[in-house]
Amino acid sequence: MNKITLLIHCKDRSNIIASVTRFIAEEGGNIVYIDQHVDREQDIFFMRLESEFNDDSFSTSDFKESFKNTLVNGFEMKWRIYSSEIKPKMALFISKYDHCLYDLLGRYNSGELNLSIPFIVSNHLDLKSIADNFKIPFHHIPVTKDTKNEAEDKQLELLEKHDIDFIVLARYMQIVSGKLISRYPNKIINIHHSFLPAFVGAKPYHSAYKRGVKIIGATSHYVTEELDAGPIIEQDVAHVSHTHSIQDLIAKGRDLEKIVLANAVKLHADRKVMVYNNKTVIFS
Amino acid sequence: MNKITLLIHCKDRSNIIASVTRFIAEEGGNIVYIDQHVDREQDIFFMRLESEFNDDSFSTSDFKESFKNTLVNGFEMKWRIYSSEIKPKMALFISKYDHCLYDLLGRYNSGELNLSIPFIVSNHLDLKSIADNFKIPFHHIPVTKDTKNEAEDKQLELLEKHDIDFIVLARYMQIVSGKLISRYPNKIINIHHSFLPAFVGAKPYHSAYKRGVKIIGATSHYVTEELDAGPIIEQDVAHVSHTHSIQDLIAKGRDLEKIVLANAVKLHADRKVMVYNNKTVIFS
Amino acid sequence: MNKITLLIHCKDRSNIIASVTRFIAEEGGNIVYIDQHVDREQDIFFMRLESEFNDDSFSTSDFKESFKNTLVNGFEMKWRIYSSEIKPKMALFISKYDHCLYDLLGRYNSGELNLSIPFIVSNHLDLKSIADNFKIPFHHIPVTKDTKNEAEDKQLELLEKHDIDFIVLARYMQIVSGKLISRYPNKIINIHHSFLPAFVGAKPYHSAYKRGVKIIGATSHYVTEELDAGPIIEQDVAHVSHTHSIQDLIAKGRDLEKIVLANAVKLHADRKVMVYNNKTVIFS
Amino acid sequence: MNKITLLIHCKDRSNIIASVTRFIAEEGGNIVYIDQHVDREQDIFFMRLESEFNDDSFSTSDFKESFKNTLVNGFEMKWRIYSSEIKPKMALFISKYDHCLYDLLGRYNSGELNLSIPFIVSNHLDLKSIADNFKIPFHHIPVTKDTKNEAEDKQLELLEKHDIDFIVLARYMQIVSGKLISRYPNKIINIHHSFLPAFVGAKPYHSAYKRGVKIIGATSHYVTEELDAGPIIEQDVAHVSHTHSIQDLIAKGRDLEKIVLANAVKLHADRKVMVYNNKTVIFS
Repeated sequence: MNKITLLIHCKDRSNIIASVTRFIAEEGGNIVYIDQHVDREQDIFFMRLESEFNDDSFSTSDFKESFKNTLVNGFEMKWRIYSSEIKPKMALFISKYDHCLYDLLGRYNSGELNLSIPFIVSNHLDLKSIADNFKIPFHHIPVTKDTKNEAEDKQLELLEKHDIDFIVLARYMQIVSGKLISRYPNKIINIHHSFLPAFVGAKPYHSAYKRGVKIIGATSHYVTEELDAGPIIEQDVAHVSHTHSIQDLIAKGRDLEKIVLANAVKLHADRKVMVYNNKTVIFS
Repeated sequence: MNKITLLIHCKDRSNIIASVTRFIAEEGGNIVYIDQHVDREQDIFFMRLESEFNDDSFSTSDFKESFKNTLVNGFEMKWRIYSSEIKPKMALFISKYDHCLYDLLGRYNSGELNLSIPFIVSNHLDLKSIADNFKIPFHHIPVTKDTKNEAEDKQLELLEKHDIDFIVLARYMQIVSGKLISRYPNKIINIHHSFLPAFVGAKPYHSAYKRGVKIIGATSHYVTEELDAGPIIEQDVAHVSHTHSIQDLIAKGRDLEKIVLANAVKLHADRKVMVYNNKTVIFS
Repeated sequence: MNKITLLIHCKDRSNIIASVTRFIAEEGGNIVYIDQHVDREQDIFFMRLESEFNDDSFSTSDFKESFKNTLVNGFEMKWRIYSSEIKPKMALFISKYDHCLYDLLGRYNSGELNLSIPFIVSNHLDLKSIADNFKIPFHHIPVTKDTKNEAEDKQLELLEKHDIDFIVLARYMQIVSGKLISRYPNKIINIHHSFLPAFVGAKPYHSAYKRGVKIIGATSHYVTEELDAGPIIEQDVAHVSHTHSIQDLIAKGRDLEKIVLANAVKLHADRKVMVYNNKTVIFS
Repeated sequence: MNKITLLIHCKDRSNIIASVTRFIAEEGGNIVYIDQHVDREQDIFFMRLESEFNDDSFSTSDFKESFKNTLVNGFEMKWRIYSSEIKPKMALFISKYDHCLYDLLGRYNSGELNLSIPFIVSNHLDLKSIADNFKIPFHHIPVTKDTKNEAEDKQLELLEKHDIDFIVLARYMQIVSGKLISRYPNKIINIHHSFLPAFVGAKPYHSAYKRGVKIIGATSHYVTEELDAGPIIEQDVAHVSHTHSIQDLIAKGRDLEKIVLANAVKLHADRKVMVYNNKTVIFS
């Protein structure tokens, strides 16, 4: 049994759904999931579709070729296709905070995440023992202002060597440069410790405390060149009050950060996120 | 431009999606919304589809006939079809509590609800002036143990005379009999003032207070013969603490009740709810 | 039985609680509620206390005099005292949106709000009939760029004539000038339709839609000269997704706005809010 | 500097607050936190108070003696006193699920929990390596129907040997007997994987799935002889839909369970929970 996931977006027009579903049927596929969305402001059509092919003779490359000729050109589609058997490879970038790391590795260990983690990178050695406990290769790549460029080259080398699909910044306390971002567009997931767009930048809990908000939040988003301004994947919030100190906000925030980041990672790994116009469509 | 909404459920098997979408295309329709769900425990397939037909010659009755012959019989589908131009007619049953009434009529007035309200029924006169203010016909049908049967006959007469599609019990403090329920299966929406299945029956806030729960809730569900056990449409909750008296719980609960009931009414009126196995599939 | 509510704040130091509670006991009072907070960053002490006095000879003015001499001077306290029998008088400022108005008047009618509403002011006539239905005097004071100053003079005249304690802007779509604000400092409550400090200013739901947030919010705050930057009283949020249009965000937002504003009004009317440093301490 | 936390409850009557605060002042204490609650249904007074004593000559045992003579007898108080320097000792009981264990140990490691963990007990060996990684002694005490009594004796021996203050059942899949419960009344914290009182007993996610609820929850409570009926400390919920399988509910529930249990543990360790009438007062 072969199973594929197909993501499509294109200008909205008549008969896209009918054309795609007919094509799948003619290729011998059985659609087991279909979801679609139309952005009426921008007139863009989005679709996510899962299909099973029983035929032993099914070949993904043939399917791709045929799909391209039959549909992609006519509808001017942007599309991606995934085989459900192939798990995406995720690189974890960390620094000194361990809560997101423990949470992701705990879920990974218990089989909750549909991905593999070939290695962990950190600019500090503090959390190496956690990586060791979970038996994940750990690479220490220190970063200073002067060595930032070379450090990113080392990171890129590792990413390419392991054929990494996407990167997760699990409270990695460095700003990632355009070199890395352009190589992994909409493939670097960050967790920001505020309800974006409130409190962009450093020390958001301090800013939240100062402003006297009654709710704090966390936001997971794709990294773009503009700081904390990339497409939002997932957000959650918690109520706070005047009784909470900055330290309390930070502690409460940790709980938000780990849940929000884990959810974003799952959505991305399951190919449920489509990005356009600096926004996300989430087929969950 | 004609627009229809189609709801389908049947045993899950191959090619349902492809067959339905091909049929719509052949009838000249353009699918503008499609969503589907498979209950893998029970092997049941559900679909909600909206399609536009530009052709002036489109006829709903022809479409129905053709759909029946081409698809329904082969797949043994259960199905409903709605014309998007026809708003469902809702009857409001109330007693003495006004918060859900004000909320629904306020939304109705501002055009938020896609339905019409031919009349309001109450077993008390207390809220007649609100109905008058909103210019909705008000029928006072008192209910006592002895007159319950005749009262329901009067209600049924009104419902049939106005060709009512569904009934909303907006804190109507009477238990509705099997006679009414069997006439409007999965078409009577109730708001229960607890997080069901906790605290079934009368005085749920008193029970919640006694049990010392830290969260209270409200549940909107379809009415079935078993008390407070029908298919759940919508639920929401609010945090409470030891500082809240029963009166506080009741006041907080009112806010939940009106939001939860309004959401359930909207989902039903927009034909987004399918019921099976005493559960709901909500295509929202 | 006399009952008072006492609000105190001053620089934090030893024995404030003991001194105040001893004073109340010596005056013959029985403390039925006490809550306190210390802002450790700023070293400020806050207290809210309710006390009952059985003695028929109790006089609020004597108590005030005595309290001032015994405690206020020594501790350099800022303080307010309220008799629980006297309900605060609230003026409602509205424009064309009716959802917050219906909600507040519905609660007022059912006895949920511990306040009186001597009148409603609007710059439009659209909602006059709602005020009439609830039998609250309605004053139409149109506002144009040229007449804004005179309009505020008329408003001030009404406010003073009725001895208004606080003002609620229930989606009043005008910016209130410094003249009014300085006359009612921390006594003008606004409802802003976003999760502040995100999306300050006009059309926040449009901005939220554009940014692609997954959560929208509403914020009730005291009005200060800086737009949407005053002390926050209450906030709440709702989850949204890519499927929601701007109109959907606005509709969902209305539900948040009315609940958040009602809660802020209740907290203020029950004298549970203290303001300092552009933040609030909420003794709820 | 000595710091104590005092918890009091007694029948409500006049002058309790004044009497206690005067006593503390006379002993040379400075009250840094005070909170109180009156259950008006039952006429019970509750107080939590933190006080600092600068005097080097301060002795907790003298204070206790004096407090007892001066206040406890007169007001018939039930009371507890804690020195803030002494961290409570918590025993962790686990089985095969690791999510709550990772979460608690991660928080413990990062200094978030104000307690010590002398040992972990499990009826299985599966999670021993996690205990080892965190360098916490691990005791394997298998439990079968026949050995249950002896197993509990071994547990009791360990608990007494280490002078354990409270026990946390972190998804310990055994029913604890009355012998253990009566030895640690309101000192055994359980996490139940439903929103109690809905879905008492085993397999609550299966029951929630069957009932078709739109919200699932988790409840942390003190263990009493009646199953899942003890005083509730903390609850939280998450929204679900028809798209979630039982496995999805279980995965979502894990996130709730760990946050809810961690919060309950923190509240208990910080002596913020008082129990009466099978309910809790939480001074948070």
